Amino acid sequence: MELKDQMREIGAKARKAARKLSTLSSAQKDHGLKMIAEALIHHSSLILDANQKDLKEGRQKGLPEALMDRLLLNEMRIEEMAQGMRALAALPDPVGEVTGMWKRPNGLMIGKKRVPLGVVGIIYEARPNVTADAAGLCLKTGNAAVLRGGSEAFYSNLAISEVISQAAEEAGMPVGCIQLVRSTDRSAVDELLKMNQYLDVVIPRGGAGLIQHVVNHATVPVIETGVGNCHTYIDSEADMDMALDIAINAKTSRPGVCNAMETLLVNREIAPQILPLLGEKFRAKGVELRGCPQTCRILPEAVPAKEEDWSTEYLDLILAVKVVDDLDAAIEHISLYGTKHSEAIVTNNYGKAQRFLEEVDAAAVYVNASTRFTDGGQFGYGAEIGISTQKLHARGPMGLEALTTIKYIIYGNGQIRN
Amino acid sequence: MELKDQMREIGAKARKAARKLSTLSSAQKDHGLKMIAEALIHHSSLILDANQKDLKEGRQKGLPEALMDRLLLNEMRIEEMAQGMRALAALPDPVGEVTGMWKRPNGLMIGKKRVPLGVVGIIYEARPNVTADAAGLCLKTGNAAVLRGGSEAFYSNLAISEVISQAAEEAGMPVGCIQLVRSTDRSAVDELLKMNQYLDVVIPRGGAGLIQHVVNHATVPVIETGVGNCHTYIDSEADMDMALDIAINAKTSRPGVCNAMETLLVNREIAPQILPLLGEKFRAKGVELRGCPQTCRILPEAVPAKEEDWSTEYLDLILAVKVVDDLDAAIEHISLYGTKHSEAIVTNNYGKAQRFLEEVDAAAVYVNASTRFTDGGQFGYGAEIGISTQKLHARGPMGLEALTTIKYIIYGNGQIRN
Repeated sequence: MELKDQMREIGAKARKAARKLSTLSSAQKDHGLKMIAEALIHHSSLILDANQKDLKEGRQKGLPEALMDRLLLNEMRIEEMAQGMRALAALPDPVGEVTGMWKRPNGLMIGKKRVPLGVVGIIYEARPNVTADAAGLCLKTGNAAVLRGGSEAFYSNLAISEVISQAAEEAGMPVGCIQLVRSTDRSAVDELLKMNQYLDVVIPRGGAGLIQHVVNHATVPVIETGVGNCHTYIDSEADMDMALDIAINAKTSRPGVCNAMETLLVNREIAPQILPLLGEKFRAKGVELRGCPQTCRILPEAVPAKEEDWSTEYLDLILAVKVVDDLDAAIEHISLYGTKHSEAIVTNNYGKAQRFLEEVDAAAVYVNASTRFTDGGQFGYGAEIGISTQKLHARGPMGLEALTTIKYIIYGNGQIRN
Repeated sequence: MELKDQMREIGAKARKAARKLSTLSSAQKDHGLKMIAEALIHHSSLILDANQKDLKEGRQKGLPEALMDRLLLNEMRIEEMAQGMRALAALPDPVGEVTGMWKRPNGLMIGKKRVPLGVVGIIYEARPNVTADAAGLCLKTGNAAVLRGGSEAFYSNLAISEVISQAAEEAGMPVGCIQLVRSTDRSAVDELLKMNQYLDVVIPRGGAGLIQHVVNHATVPVIETGVGNCHTYIDSEADMDMALDIAINAKTSRPGVCNAMETLLVNREIAPQILPLLGEKFRAKGVELRGCPQTCRILPEAVPAKEEDWSTEYLDLILAVKVVDDLDAAIEHISLYGTKHSEAIVTNNYGKAQRFLEEVDAAAVYVNASTRFTDGGQFGYGAEIGISTQKLHARGPMGLEALTTIKYIIYGNGQIRN
């Protein structure tokens, strides 16, 4: 069968499964998730065997160590997947909630009801646990999922998806509710991105290259996730100790994630006092500093920043540092180079805090806290699909609601329109 | 200047204006809308002169009469545009509302605040009043607008947009808040569709061809509007008079709009009684019927429907009619051919009504009412941007909220993440 036909068959099957899934009760879905958790544990040796094949091929191909670590599964990581399913089962079901209902002058009762999106496509890279994670999130919200993982994790993904879909079907969920695209051909992704007839949304999870490819080629609606060139602005009226703690935490607590700080902006009045203190702490943490001319004058260890440093998401122990004249200059810099992810100000001035919250255009804007809190768990959402960096549909950390849409249900008694 | 540079200049200007617009108070925006209303009336002769140029060119090109009518402006239509601005000024401002705020265990206060989308691109066809309409909706919600109208209405759109942007600027709104793309070159649209750096969303308003072009070529997020292949299912337990009224209304009250019925499904038990009555009423309204074999046996005047009739949005006094075995067959048919816009059942059976509401996947699902109510005004939204037929961001009639997104505002007192 041609690739195009294979993909359409997957799409049609998913669409059919989605119809059935949307009518399942919360209890049925939660039961399914618990059964999947059990099946993952029960079949862990099968999954680990498959993972060994990926690891062997990865070694032969000479994949970098960090990637090999992301590929690796063990009993603990499988237990975490199962635990994720159980945690989802314990969360409230967003589907079915009527968020509002009103009566029109003609007597029509109009209600807004939360329903599943339908069929969700998820395209991701190396980590095989995303297969379980994405499947669980979709089933919890009554969506069918079409999954396309990275070729490095092919055997692992296949084993996990088969264990999940078999357990789901045994628990009464429809055939085709979770499908993995078995072709590792890049053109399978491109086909998926244009299946508007079958897919309601596609979510890329991975690096900037993958996300850009999806955004540029999809005709299916996309939820863009991920890139974060986050700033912290230390105002002249900041509490010095708080500013130090927040800056160190935002950069070094986990430098490889999207909510980590990439550029530090420091008010010129406070720069001569605070930069040397910051420099010392960053040095102790092994952070390389790339500074504007003024920063370099104060901190001789900083290397001169190039223009591209202001727009780089390092995801590493590197930090760009710039001294700015005032709040306006800070906001202007963020507006020019920010990716609208997470931005923070440290200040004790009420007016400046309010202006920063008002004028900075980003998914999450902080006063006196680390940007590292932009995260579904930290926001109290229980589960996280990803962090949206677009403005349509969902912005910032996405909880289960981001995998739903609404439907108007209208109760009449014979109304016709004049 | 090259077209690409021209478009990027428009985008950059809009982005700058959007930053300023997002900080205006509701009072400032409403004042601007009222000033624009006055300016439209004050400069009506200038607008009408420009419209004469379009009409003259249209006659020379031999545009069809219906299109010429859509192009035509007169004092009354300009008064309607002004009235639209005043009505928007009187509506509540959705921007600034904090829809929720909660405290995390670590003391962080997290709030969800409604903010403008930023820069909205609107691509539309013949009617010049859309220029005023779209500009007003965007300004009310604090968004900058980049408008691209049809070439047939070029001079009218130019005059209207200049009157509006001049009045807006005089009222203190930023330069560039409303811009019309002056190139009538198709490639200007294609450029616009890929300006992700400057545009937050693009909304096509027009026929299926325009919408498909936008969906297929945009990398900027799109809100898809418009196509409605709407069904009404008359159940065996329907009230006959109600079913007749609803079917006639759904087809004939305004056949050229997206919420009009295009296919009637009739339960086989009730078909022999109700189809002759329906046939008579549709005949009196000049409706051409295209029926399934069973329909044609009962109604000799019906012409046999072809496969494509079930998926055609006629937007005309033509109706496809199919006799179905039961509710399942009706839902199956809708699932196969519907465009997820508006679907109705007429029944007095509680269980069937509930099943239809639950199982039919569409923006608006009705029990015992005409599909013609799917409309922002009829839903009580005051203003309507369009009717979304996609599931992301907004579904069904879009009120002012559809032109907003959210931003998390987070108040800390030194929180860092472990």
